[in-house]
Parts: sequence; structure tokens; C-alpha cells
Amino acid sequence: MAALPAPLRQTLTELLGPGGLLLDESERLAYGYDNSRRQGLPLAVALPETAQQVQGIVRACRQHRLPIVARGRGTNTTGASVPGEDALVVSFERMDRILAIRPGDRVAVVQPGLLNGDLQAALAEHGLFWPPDPTSAAFSTVGGNLACNAGGPRAVKYGASRDNVLALRAVTGTGELVSLGAATTKGASGYDLARLLVGSEGTLALIVEASLKLTPRAPLWRALRALYTDVDAAAAAVARLMAQPVTPSMLEFMDGECVRLAREVGGAELPPCGALLMIEADGDQSVLDAAEAALRAAAEGPGCLEVSAAADEAAREKLWAARKALSPSLRTLAPGKINEDVVVPVSRLPELVAAVQAAARGHQLPIVCFGHAGNGNLHVNILYDPADAAQAARAEAALQAVFAAVVELGGQLSGEHGIGLVKRDLLARALPPATLALMRAIKAQFDPDGLLNPGKVLPP
Amino acid sequence: MAALPAPLRQTLTELLGPGGLLLDESERLAYGYDNSRRQGLPLAVALPETAQQVQGIVRACRQHRLPIVARGRGTNTTGASVPGEDALVVSFERMDRILAIRPGDRVAVVQPGLLNGDLQAALAEHGLFWPPDPTSAAFSTVGGNLACNAGGPRAVKYGASRDNVLALRAVTGTGELVSLGAATTKGASGYDLARLLVGSEGTLALIVEASLKLTPRAPLWRALRALYTDVDAAAAAVARLMAQPVTPSMLEFMDGECVRLAREVGGAELPPCGALLMIEADGDQSVLDAAEAALRAAAEGPGCLEVSAAADEAAREKLWAARKALSPSLRTLAPGKINEDVVVPVSRLPELVAAVQAAARGHQLPIVCFGHAGNGNLHVNILYDPADAAQAARAEAALQAVFAAVVELGGQLSGEHGIGLVKRDLLARALPPATLALMRAIKAQFDPDGLLNPGKVLPP
Repeated sequence: MAALPAPLRQTLTELLGPGGLLLDESERLAYGYDNSRRQGLPLAVALPETAQQVQGIVRACRQHRLPIVARGRGTNTTGASVPGEDALVVSFERMDRILAIRPGDRVAVVQPGLLNGDLQAALAEHGLFWPPDPTSAAFSTVGGNLACNAGGPRAVKYGASRDNVLALRAVTGTGELVSLGAATTKGASGYDLARLLVGSEGTLALIVEASLKLTPRAPLWRALRALYTDVDAAAAAVARLMAQPVTPSMLEFMDGECVRLAREVGGAELPPCGALLMIEADGDQSVLDAAEAALRAAAEGPGCLEVSAAADEAAREKLWAARKALSPSLRTLAPGKINEDVVVPVSRLPELVAAVQAAARGHQLPIVCFGHAGNGNLHVNILYDPADAAQAARAEAALQAVFAAVVELGGQLSGEHGIGLVKRDLLARALPPATLALMRAIKAQFDPDGLLNPGKVLPP
Repeated sequence: MAALPAPLRQTLTELLGPGGLLLDESERLAYGYDNSRRQGLPLAVALPETAQQVQGIVRACRQHRLPIVARGRGTNTTGASVPGEDALVVSFERMDRILAIRPGDRVAVVQPGLLNGDLQAALAEHGLFWPPDPTSAAFSTVGGNLACNAGGPRAVKYGASRDNVLALRAVTGTGELVSLGAATTKGASGYDLARLLVGSEGTLALIVEASLKLTPRAPLWRALRALYTDVDAAAAAVARLMAQPVTPSMLEFMDGECVRLAREVGGAELPPCGALLMIEADGDQSVLDAAEAALRAAAEGPGCLEVSAAADEAAREKLWAARKALSPSLRTLAPGKINEDVVVPVSRLPELVAAVQAAARGHQLPIVCFGHAGNGNLHVNILYDPADAAQAARAEAALQAVFAAVVELGGQLSGEHGIGLVKRDLLARALPPATLALMRAIKAQFDPDGLLNPGKVLPP
């Protein structure tokens, strides 16, 4: 099809009312991309306001066998929200309300189109927060965070999206509205289908309401910066930090090249070094001194050059700003980058870092690494010139070497970005066939006609 | 069938070797019951030592369409491990090893037949623990804990079994050995099938290996005891305690009748009161004073008679011993009890307690309550004489009233005991038909012939 079939168009127009269905190409274009640099052009964009409208959309599309791609704000990096040919995008921008905040239950009930940042602002008044804090938090949605199992630096202490959801209401591929889980912090009443939906990237059902598990906000924090002679020394320190009792509220890693970029491009005041850890503790005044002492002791060791506390809030903010600017600043090194967010058990980080360095040497390309070290989650950036065919081939070979190391070390292809389109075919190499077969079989129960985000996550 | 078919018997004997297949009735009887007071007699009991043997058992049974019931130590209270007629029990008692403890990853890899208590003892040397701590911990298995999503008092701060597992290896109903999840604390790589298995009570697959998420052990704790005029006042205090930042490491509730039993039967030194909360904080020396002050302030309020710290370790142990003795001591009040472990959002606890009291009055039966209040998880005990038909009918009516209130309050039938046989038919009332249909469809993907623990969890 090149256009929405007329009867479907009429059904959706009646269902969604004026302005509820976007058909102009210029408007449709804006809903066709994400941060993967891939782009598609949907046949139409639906803007539902209620769960019942979402059901109506799915049922109508099903009659016409039209694929459906759910969309938050399209901040993901894997093509998960890029529509294929002949698809309808369902954007949740009009379902963006907070339905309830119940401090005594530590629960918020929200619609999927709510921005993570808006939720955090509303929760702050109650002394609470929702742990997932991807870099995109200010402009990504809770629904998108759940669909991708988004994490962020705080996940090391507070968990990622899956660890912080209690119940979901969602519309399956048959248009059925299902309630999964319950808004209690404990439960043993049948299969846990709510958490099954988290990280499924819109391939099982469209989330229309979420009951989120909230956490009390620590009033204070303490930031440490630890410098190391080389990445191996820093990776070993990460394993020491996670083996002792005080769980850091953030534990971020940068290799020497990232430190240089943070200084030269990001403007951070950092001495040259082979690697750096940003370590934070949170809590109230009574705990911070002891926490800092414990983290400092674990950070020190062979190859540690210096551990220093951020002088003040401004110094801390500056370091974080430089950290957040790292990903875009990599473009100053090479016109192209392959950005992966692999994850391995923390104790295997030194081996992963060594494997990445070997791949860089072997394929003669710069590879820079930073990431959420406390979870063993490393953002590996392979830098190359896509216009140079030889470089592009070496970049691909380096990537395969990194993935091979990850699988060998008992890790996963993605820690928090997800699979989407970009890593879909790799999943077949990372997961045993029997596991993949089960995933496909489960997908078919939620979405028997394969209409929900087809071609994403599971290899064909 | 009244006996194992001869060819199956031969296959299993060859597979499991001498002593690996129990056929004597006296032996089989010992594997036919659990703590639900129900009993079945399996045709045989298999004692595998390897995952490959488990695969062989499932394949052989599948050829003969013989149902399979996985078994840890049979401590559950719902009949989940009671075999129906014509079934094989697979007991994991010979697969009880710790395969690895990796402190830097905060991970232990274990076999399912390992006792929870043995695991904790081994982890203590590393300053770590695995959070699930059901009352049965000393003699229940990790596999059983996972199968039932076991919790316990610590779950309020550290989560239940599902929150503390990273990866599983399991044998499905077709004899396939599948690896689910990965031993990393973060992941966005396909559907989360590991947590789907947790709480599925052996109906989806047989767990043969688990990678467990460990937590650093707090070196010290502080115990408070708070007395209230009545249960409503205590329930309101629970909601206050959970709305403030310091998460207690335990928050247990007893109604006035439980307090009396703890004193008179359990020997605890307790003054008469309408309700009691046991509140604990954990951490190191630096945090405990502030934590105690915060918890004390939240515990105080309308209807609070007294908040006192346990004088010493002996006083604390005595109170806990009385708390643990509560369940058996209820038998002194009436020959029969219906014991439910319903769960509601914490803020709805006062309403649940009121509904339970109304049910007790309306049906003229004593109902005593205690439980893990910080999770909204209440053990409701309806006491009656099963020999008195009128009392039995009133007990059943009271139970239905309690369940109706739980569903109305947005809760779940079970917080940690599970569904099994005993609550199976109630699940149809508690869950919407579409949700139940999805659960059934998913079960069929793992176990197409319905051989794994048939008749449990899902109503026919």
C-alpha cells in the first residue's frame, strides 16, 4: 500500500476525531525516525487519548493487516520506533497524564506518554523519584522507557525500568485490553506478565497505563573522582567497589580518550589519565562520611593516581555535563561511530576492556569506552569514516570481535538501549535457538498476526 | 495407570542409575505432601543429579504422557508440590550444590535443590546474603523459593525471589534445556523469560540452575517494638512508615490476638495491646541512630501507646521467636484454620483490616492477622472447627468476604505463598479473563502437552 486504505482512514478518523489522525507527509515524516539515524515514513500517525481508542486502532488495523508501531518521543537508538513500509504509528503524546501519586504506597499511576522528566518533577514534591534516568530523561516518555527497559547511571543502586514497575494495562495485538500485575510490592498470583512486557519494545502489546514503583529521594550526595593509570586498573577498581557493602548511587567509567574529550571538548577540568571513575554515594548527612570512606578505600589500589571529592556542586555538575556531552563529542574524532552498550558481569569488565583494546589495535581504529560500570554496562564507540570502505569493513569486524567477547564473557548485547532493528540479527548469535524459539512463541500469543512493531527485536 | 509403565520404568532406571528412582510405596508417600495438608501418591520419584538427566526424565515421561511434579522440600502451603494421580515427582535433593560465588559480581550460581539456609551460611563468609527469607528458609530449597516467588520479612527492603534472580537454566515440557536471562544486573536483549519462570510453581519448566543476585549484608540492626490501641492505628502507622525515606529492613504486624498468643503461648514479654508493629532498620553504626529516629517518629501518632527499642539481642530474638511461633500456635485456638496471605497496596491496609474485622463479626468466627505489613502482605487466619458444618460454612463465607475486599482494594490473592491447588479456582475470580487466557497461552508454549504440574496455578 502507498496510502491508508480509505475505509480504514474513515474508521480511524471517526474514532480519533479532528486532529487525531495525521496524514500529511510533512507531519508523518516527523514520526518516522529515532536516534538510530534510520528513517521510515508511516502511512498515518494516530494520536489516541484513551485506552479504548488504542483498542479501536488496533482492531481497525488488524482488519486491514496494517502493522502498528508504538511511539513515545523516538529517543531510542536502535530503530525500535522506526516504522517499516506500510505501517501506522501510534504516538502517545496525548496520553501524558499522571493519574495518581500515592506516597504511602510508593506508587505513581501514569499514562505512557508522560515525560520521565515531568514525572520526576511531580514526584520531587513528595520526596520520591522513579529510578530510571536515561540521558534522554527530560524528553523521553515513561512508556518508551518501559518499552526499552531504560536504565541510566542510577540503575546500579536503584535498578532499571523493569525493576521499578508493578502493574501495566496494555492492548495486545488482538485489541484486547489486559491488566497485568498489581500495584503491590509483592505478589505470587500467577505468571508475571507485567515485567515480561518491559523491554519488549512494543512487540507484545501497547502499554496504556503503568503503575510505577517509587523510591524515597536521598536528600544529599557525595561525589568522588578517581583517576587511574590505565583502563585495567579502573576496571579492577569497579569490581572492588561492587564487592563491598556500600552500593554507590552512580559508578561511571571513562577511558583515557573520553577524559581527553571531556576536557578538550566538554570543558571539564581534568588532568590527563588513563581512565577515570565517577563515584557517588547518596543518603542523609549521617551516612555520607562513612559511605565516602568505604568507597574511597575500595577505589584506591594498584594503578590509582588520585581520589578526590568534588569541591562543590558546581564542580560536580561540570563533570556530569562533560560526561553527558561525551556521546555527541565523539563526532569530533571521526565522522562515523558504531555505538554499542554491551553488558557483562562486573568481574569480567577487565577482560571486556582488554578485548575492546585488542579489537582497536587489531583493526586499527580508535575505540573509546565509557558507561555505567557498576552494572558492567559499557558504551563502546568504534570511530571510523563511513565514506572509506576499508575503514567501514574494519569497523564492522571490530564490532563482531567485541560482540564475540561479550557473549564469551557471559554478557548481553545490550544493557539498556535495546535491540530494535539495529541489533536484531545479532540476537540470533547471542541467544540459544531454543530461547529464541520460546520468545517467538510468546510473541505469537500476544500478537498472533505479527502486527505489533514487526521486524523489531526478534530476527526473522 | 496404577503403576509406572514397564518401559518407562526401565528407561528411567537406566537413566538415573541405582537409587535414582524410588518405587516403594513407603518412599513415594514421603514425596506426596506439602504443608497444605493435602497428599498424593506419585507413581515414582526421580532423583536426578544433572540437567541432562532432568531432560531425559521429561522426554521419557512425555512419551508416556505422564505428568511431572517438581519438588524442593515440599514446604509450600498451597498444594503446589502435591502430585495428582498418576504422576512422577522429580525431587532435586541431589542437585544441591553451590556452583560459584562471585562477590565482585554479587552473584551466586546454584543448583535448585540447595537449601536456602545453606546458601546463606556460605554467603555470610563473603559479607553477602540472598534476600528471600521465608520462615522455612532453613529447610526450603532455592528452587522451591524461586518456583513460588518466596518472600519473607526482609522483602520490604530487599525484594522477594523474583527481584533477586538474574538468569536461569531450565528444562521445558518438551525436554528442551533453555538458558534464560544473563548474569548481569542490567539487560535489554529480548524478552525477560527468567523472571517469567519465577512464581510459576513448576508449571512452565523445571529450574536446573539459577544465577542469584546477592546483596551486601548490613553489619548491624536496630529493632523497635511499637504498641497501638487497635489495628486501625497500627495500619495507619505502617502507611506513614512506608511514606518516609528510611525503608525498614523489616516491618511486621500483629493484631491484638496475636500479641496475646505470642505472650501466652510463645512466652514473649509483651503488654496487652490492640496491635503491635515490629520495626527494624539495618546498616552500619553510622546510620542506625538516624534511621531509628526516623522510624520512631513515623511509628508514633494517633493510637500509639509506646515505641521501645529491644533491650538487647536476646529480647529481639525472643520477640522474633514468638512471631515465628504464631502460625503453629493458632492451633491452640481452634482445631481448624484457613490461612491466607493476601496483599494490598500499603495505603489500603487500614481498609483491609477493617474488612477482615467486619468478616469476623459478620460470620462470628475469630480471625487473627499478622504479616509483612511493609509490603501490604497480611496473613489472615480464619479459625474454626472443621467438624462443625455450620462453622465450616461460615469460615468459607468469611474467606470469600476477605478475598472480595482484597480484589476491591487492588490487591492480590497471594503475596508469597502462591496459588497451587488451594487457591487455583479463586484465580479465575481475581484475574480478568483476558489475562488468564494469556497465561494459559504462555503455559502452552513452554509445556504443549500440559505435563508440568498439571492442575496447579491456572484454573481448568
